[in-house]
Amino acid sequence: MKITHDKKSRGRPAKSGRDTAQTKAALINSGVEHFTEFGFASSGLDKILKKVSVPKGSFYYYFANKEDFGLAVISHYDGYFSRKLAIHLNNETLSAEQRLLSFVEDAKSGIEKYQYRRGCLVGNLEQEVSVLPPSHRDKLSQVMQGWQRKVASNIKLINSTTSQQESESLAEFFWIGWEGAVSRCKLVKSIQPIDLFIGHFLQLIRK
Amino acid sequence: MKITHDKKSRGRPAKSGRDTAQTKAALINSGVEHFTEFGFASSGLDKILKKVSVPKGSFYYYFANKEDFGLAVISHYDGYFSRKLAIHLNNETLSAEQRLLSFVEDAKSGIEKYQYRRGCLVGNLEQEVSVLPPSHRDKLSQVMQGWQRKVASNIKLINSTTSQQESESLAEFFWIGWEGAVSRCKLVKSIQPIDLFIGHFLQLIRK
Repeated sequence: MKITHDKKSRGRPAKSGRDTAQTKAALINSGVEHFTEFGFASSGLDKILKKVSVPKGSFYYYFANKEDFGLAVISHYDGYFSRKLAIHLNNETLSAEQRLLSFVEDAKSGIEKYQYRRGCLVGNLEQEVSVLPPSHRDKLSQVMQGWQRKVASNIKLINSTTSQQESESLAEFFWIGWEGAVSRCKLVKSIQPIDLFIGHFLQLIRK
Repeated sequence: MKITHDKKSRGRPAKSGRDTAQTKAALINSGVEHFTEFGFASSGLDKILKKVSVPKGSFYYYFANKEDFGLAVISHYDGYFSRKLAIHLNNETLSAEQRLLSFVEDAKSGIEKYQYRRGCLVGNLEQEVSVLPPSHRDKLSQVMQGWQRKVASNIKLINSTTSQQESESLAEFFWIGWEGAVSRCKLVKSIQPIDLFIGHFLQLIRK
């Protein structure tokens, strides 16, 4: 997706039976779908708009510019993913280790559902960060730090001898490896890399 | 880079003072540079050709098609990277662990040299594999398996109690995490993710 040459033609949106908020939400969802599958560079704005039948001239009615749209897409994905993480990691009916594994199983289902084509939106955009607007770098870092805090708390629950500093470091290690594992799933068309990753990660934190 | 619509205009190459082999090598080097920095989708063939002053009409004099070019670029990068790995991992003046750390220091220097813009060509293409020609998936898998074999041997040297199967699994874990760490370096513009990754990885294999 080219991000230069923003032509700010703020035309009225076409009538589609959806209200403004619904169309904006549909555009964000289409952005999430495209960015998780193709990343930023391969996702044309035309394809994102076409998926939800929004004419190009209406785009700037919903978003100030493409940077604003990108940030909204990242925020939306973060909201969805953070809720998913919280549901599993705060599930008091499970042991601490089972909570992490429960999140992993959920994520694996999502990857299988889309035939190993979709990855992690944050991992995809991280890879391409040098061609994204500078605001995206800060936003992606903040999102990653939020996910890391959640996993750091879980690591301390799994192994109470882990110091705060060590749990934060291990949580960073978790997300570094996680993004690598999700990417490898695409290559081998299998969730085996995630199983391998989580197996060794648990060996490390159980020590 | 679009890979469809291969227009096979096998024009004679323009006179540039380079012979055919030199021009072909220059094109491959340009491909490596672009793919390590931008990945496949953001690297236009025009930019790759322009970097080495080869007119578009001459491209098919050097390569059967863009798929052939992509495979040549991956092979070249594999050759370069495998030699780098072998130099460090076979350095008998160092302990087994120091050999791995020596490779890591070398890789960190490369990442810093290009201001955290360049990643790993294999990691970049893995992320985008669903939009690449099918032959690229097999090629990238083979390359990764070669790197894994080298690291598996090193892991057995570091910890002789590791079984063959366990060393292969840990080597796969290494490269999964490595690609994640290289990608994270781009985001945070620092080599800190690699230091954090290798620190915890060594904790795991020293057990």
